[in-house]
Amino acid sequence: MKSALGLVQASELIKSKQLMVDEYLEQCVERADQIEPVLKAFTVRAPLPNLQKQSGSGPLMGIPIAVKDIIATKDFVTSYGSPIYSSFTPAEDAAIVRKIRKLGGIIFGKTVTTEFAWRHAGVTTNPWNSAHTPGGSSSGSAAAVASGIVPLALGSQTAGSIIRPATYCGIVGFKASFGAVPRAGVHPVANSLDHIGFFTRSVIDAVYAFNLLKNTSTDEDDSIVIPELILSPLSTVLGKQKPHFAVLKTPFDDLLSAEQIDAMEKAIHLLKASGASAEELTLPQTYWDGIEALAVLMACEAAVVHEKHLEKFPDLLGADIKELVEKGNACSVSGYIKAKQLQMQLRRSIGEYFQRFDAILANPATGEAPKGLDLTGNPIFCSLWTFIGTPAIALPVNRSCNGLPLGIQLIGNYKEDEKLVNMAAFAEECFSAYDRAKLKVKI
Amino acid sequence: MKSALGLVQASELIKSKQLMVDEYLEQCVERADQIEPVLKAFTVRAPLPNLQKQSGSGPLMGIPIAVKDIIATKDFVTSYGSPIYSSFTPAEDAAIVRKIRKLGGIIFGKTVTTEFAWRHAGVTTNPWNSAHTPGGSSSGSAAAVASGIVPLALGSQTAGSIIRPATYCGIVGFKASFGAVPRAGVHPVANSLDHIGFFTRSVIDAVYAFNLLKNTSTDEDDSIVIPELILSPLSTVLGKQKPHFAVLKTPFDDLLSAEQIDAMEKAIHLLKASGASAEELTLPQTYWDGIEALAVLMACEAAVVHEKHLEKFPDLLGADIKELVEKGNACSVSGYIKAKQLQMQLRRSIGEYFQRFDAILANPATGEAPKGLDLTGNPIFCSLWTFIGTPAIALPVNRSCNGLPLGIQLIGNYKEDEKLVNMAAFAEECFSAYDRAKLKVKI
Repeated sequence: MKSALGLVQASELIKSKQLMVDEYLEQCVERADQIEPVLKAFTVRAPLPNLQKQSGSGPLMGIPIAVKDIIATKDFVTSYGSPIYSSFTPAEDAAIVRKIRKLGGIIFGKTVTTEFAWRHAGVTTNPWNSAHTPGGSSSGSAAAVASGIVPLALGSQTAGSIIRPATYCGIVGFKASFGAVPRAGVHPVANSLDHIGFFTRSVIDAVYAFNLLKNTSTDEDDSIVIPELILSPLSTVLGKQKPHFAVLKTPFDDLLSAEQIDAMEKAIHLLKASGASAEELTLPQTYWDGIEALAVLMACEAAVVHEKHLEKFPDLLGADIKELVEKGNACSVSGYIKAKQLQMQLRRSIGEYFQRFDAILANPATGEAPKGLDLTGNPIFCSLWTFIGTPAIALPVNRSCNGLPLGIQLIGNYKEDEKLVNMAAFAEECFSAYDRAKLKVKI
Repeated sequence: MKSALGLVQASELIKSKQLMVDEYLEQCVERADQIEPVLKAFTVRAPLPNLQKQSGSGPLMGIPIAVKDIIATKDFVTSYGSPIYSSFTPAEDAAIVRKIRKLGGIIFGKTVTTEFAWRHAGVTTNPWNSAHTPGGSSSGSAAAVASGIVPLALGSQTAGSIIRPATYCGIVGFKASFGAVPRAGVHPVANSLDHIGFFTRSVIDAVYAFNLLKNTSTDEDDSIVIPELILSPLSTVLGKQKPHFAVLKTPFDDLLSAEQIDAMEKAIHLLKASGASAEELTLPQTYWDGIEALAVLMACEAAVVHEKHLEKFPDLLGADIKELVEKGNACSVSGYIKAKQLQMQLRRSIGEYFQRFDAILANPATGEAPKGLDLTGNPIFCSLWTFIGTPAIALPVNRSCNGLPLGIQLIGNYKEDEKLVNMAAFAEECFSAYDRAKLKVKI
């Protein structure tokens, strides 16, 4: 089914007219129609004729893209996962949506998010087993790509909301360095932490999406410009043939399932089999203090974001959000300022590790997607890297006994996104050579 | 007396060997010895032989520079204006001091600051009338340049601590866009607001100092890189012959002395006489809310900075600092976050005004330096621009009946420092043509 094509692949076939846009979109819609009753990835989708009309020219010509419903779209209800906005249509597209349209891309529909991209789960199921969560908060975006509906979906991560659902759904999730992707028009969780990122079926697709949709100016608050990422031979990137990975140990490794431990061992084995080297990395406690500091920034900034909601619609705001706001309002200013200072300090100091390692290899989650749809899983293995703002990418490695995906994440130095994606491309090659069949999109 | 030479002038004379470094330094020391008993600009000075030994080669060869005692120096006691540090010598120079030494510059001595660059006044007197304050917090630095001891002094501004003392002392004070000058090793007042800047006797000297001492990387938190500033013909800078100034009205203009109002009128007259145009500018209330927001950021961040002082040395901490810390600790996190958000918002939105105007012309202070040494004057005419982080430069215009300097400040768009200094060079030329005799350094 053509809806399962990769982004770059589909794009090239469209350009060379080997794939007709109308037919491609028809198959994507067909796939969605087929699976959505169980998957529930979308809050709203455009009807086929509207999709076909939307297609413009440009590097995203004919490409259907799913957009997390935390991101404003002027032609779709944008509910932010909240009943407060259940019939709200923004006057303007978010900046990244404008970019998509300008490049000829098509907004396929809006995907389910947890309430305001915080904890309260939506209805989406895991494409590999509908009794399990797809992860959150970018639940629908991960599920839509993993189940072969669209080749690209936008998500956001404030703790672990891209890496974790990508892992649970067995696809690639990429969040670049903090500030590298436009956020204007995205409902904030917490400005110091929110990252916009991409769900795709391969590293090259994530790189393609990033290069097209990244910030090209620093007009927005906290924005940075990362130059176009180029995938090159390793010797060009590293000045040597083989990468050296740090295998991260964390204070919460006892949360890891036996299968996740196996998956990580498998990943290390496969990397080494391709000539890479790896050694263990433990970080000083200051780094792990970053996880509590993330919670402080999140609560304090969310309290400001939701002040108006709490005032006007107290009954429509979920208990999770209320608890977050209360936590934020109980924080001291000095606690907040120290958390910000720690963030800046770690963003600079982490660079020292990347003098010794080409990338950090880490567990992205405790293991397979947990059973049940009420909780979206534990983000703790992602939080530190979201706090610091370093780029991270999730890659599938193998599958659990339950047939659910297991994976790893790779972390790069702040603003050294290009090196990270090159390491990820190397790792992807190592992993897929091992068992390509198991890593396919599920259709 | 050669100690009254400008920075560029002295530098060129030294390079062409028309001025001998030893002789120049001798005259600077002589001038200091002569006037320091009354002026009290320095907390500590290097003896002449040490100065002569320090001189290196480079663009600052032989140039004696006074350093505000809020900036760390490894060969001078650095007391931050506080008895807590009365015998403290840092292990390392501040980043900007390292730059000075690397370029051949000489640290002439440390200058009096208010306590931790906050309110509690030091002993320095105004060089034009020792019964009046030189302004603060960069009291000694402004006085040392204005009284012909050194051609360049470093200061810092968190509300109005460069522009105001420069004005009160009748010299040029320049603070570039927020983050453009290295702050590592400078004792913070409040990280979101602290600017390092320069006291000189002319615009060209301020530009020369900035170009040599500005940030060249973004290694520090909140740092930006402004390209080298170039003074060019107006037609090159503006694409037209004559500048258009905005004359700023503020909600506290009733604080202005009649003489200051006259000085501003004189300034406008002189600018227009040289072909410039000017029109009044009023800003929406949101901008003026920035002044209270600045107070919030200052108090909250200072509370964190002084936590350890309050804990360990409560008896050595002044009442002003204690009050500031208490105010900070009483702030809500949401108040702090909103103040930061307003700062970012105004930093972006102010640009719209600079589409219409080449620079904003504003009062730098209520009038002449107030009588008495206990208070350093009101910073309110500077606060908004420190909050926003736009570049600002103080220029002398004329003198009051008491013989004290009166001046104006020019404000440029954030990161458009080059345009600002060009406007300032134009204004300086207009003002000095009028009454050059009155604007000389006082010796």
